[in-house]
Amino acid sequence: MRLAELSERSGVSTATIKYYLREGLLAPGRQINATTAEYDEEHLRRLRLVRALIQVGKVPVANAREVLKHVDDESLGRTIRLGAALWALPQAPDPDEEDPATVAAAAEVDRLLRTLGWESAREIGPLSPVHRSLVALVATLLRLGYPCDAELMRPYAELMYRAAVRDLDRLETYESDTEKVETAVSSAVLFEPVLRSLHRLAQEVESARRYGIE
Amino acid sequence: MRLAELSERSGVSTATIKYYLREGLLAPGRQINATTAEYDEEHLRRLRLVRALIQVGKVPVANAREVLKHVDDESLGRTIRLGAALWALPQAPDPDEEDPATVAAAAEVDRLLRTLGWESAREIGPLSPVHRSLVALVATLLRLGYPCDAELMRPYAELMYRAAVRDLDRLETYESDTEKVETAVSSAVLFEPVLRSLHRLAQEVESARRYGIE
Repeated sequence: MRLAELSERSGVSTATIKYYLREGLLAPGRQINATTAEYDEEHLRRLRLVRALIQVGKVPVANAREVLKHVDDESLGRTIRLGAALWALPQAPDPDEEDPATVAAAAEVDRLLRTLGWESAREIGPLSPVHRSLVALVATLLRLGYPCDAELMRPYAELMYRAAVRDLDRLETYESDTEKVETAVSSAVLFEPVLRSLHRLAQEVESARRYGIE
Repeated sequence: MRLAELSERSGVSTATIKYYLREGLLAPGRQINATTAEYDEEHLRRLRLVRALIQVGKVPVANAREVLKHVDDESLGRTIRLGAALWALPQAPDPDEEDPATVAAAAEVDRLLRTLGWESAREIGPLSPVHRSLVALVATLLRLGYPCDAELMRPYAELMYRAAVRDLDRLETYESDTEKVETAVSSAVLFEPVLRSLHRLAQEVESARRYGIE
């Protein structure tokens, strides 16, 4: 398809598509002659992902480029490729290692991972920005005097694990590894807010069930 | 306790506490003489909440004031008081009613709520900013060409419902309604990011289990 059709089918203006091409976020089309390039379904799919990252997820262009670099890196094993792409998304700040709350939080997170049998997460540990973010968030709760220990987190972690199994089952319906990684990235950006909304809506429903709507 | 002790126990500087007092985010202490005021445990608890909202949650001062107004409104029934406090937090943007994707999204959300038996959420419907956010988020996914229908959302909604039951069980361990609402607000700001981290960590764990760590 030509640029005009790519724009129409994606709902992204031709000016924005040209910007993504210049920034290297979208691979160039197949040049037919000096002024015309041809795009395919893969371009359309990638364009949707770029839009999800930048326009919806407000991911900075530099982060988006980093994410896509990992998405396209076929030399990586699947877990690492998934991880690298997701790790390149903006993360919560790192923990302040000097703070005693960080030490307490790291101990609680380690205790949680042990009771859950999440050995791979313990092995990767502080190398993973996700692990570091979790420690930083727990440290913030502890510093403000809110309880947040392994016992409190465990049932929530188990629910999230069931969600993760479902996430990966969904990924496996896609053929290529590239599509799997693309879907994981778009879900992290677009579907996590849906989960948060469902959680808040569920709280309203349960509150209405327990206390009525006065 | 005096201002200095309140500052030390909360980890909030006296200058910041004075700012919160001026902005009406914290009730004045009991005046002992012209220059000294006395603060109690309730001040400390409220100060932690204000800090969670403003410093950690990046909630604008005007929103925080609105949230606290509802937290303190003892004339409201519990569900409405909880709802009003949480609804005053910054929400995802409202859906664009003109967009056909919004119509499709609203239909999917309604179908989801019916299959779940979440009748109260259907009744409150578009009055709830949480409901409106969910419709807007689903519309965004549909517009970008990502699948998001009632069947896909249902198992996630059921997991989130189990989390919500646990949330409300936790609230019930607090004595006063004010403490219950305060805890709901601090959880929405501080604990939701923990849930998101646990979800991402669970994805890494399940990916490592299925595909190994190469």
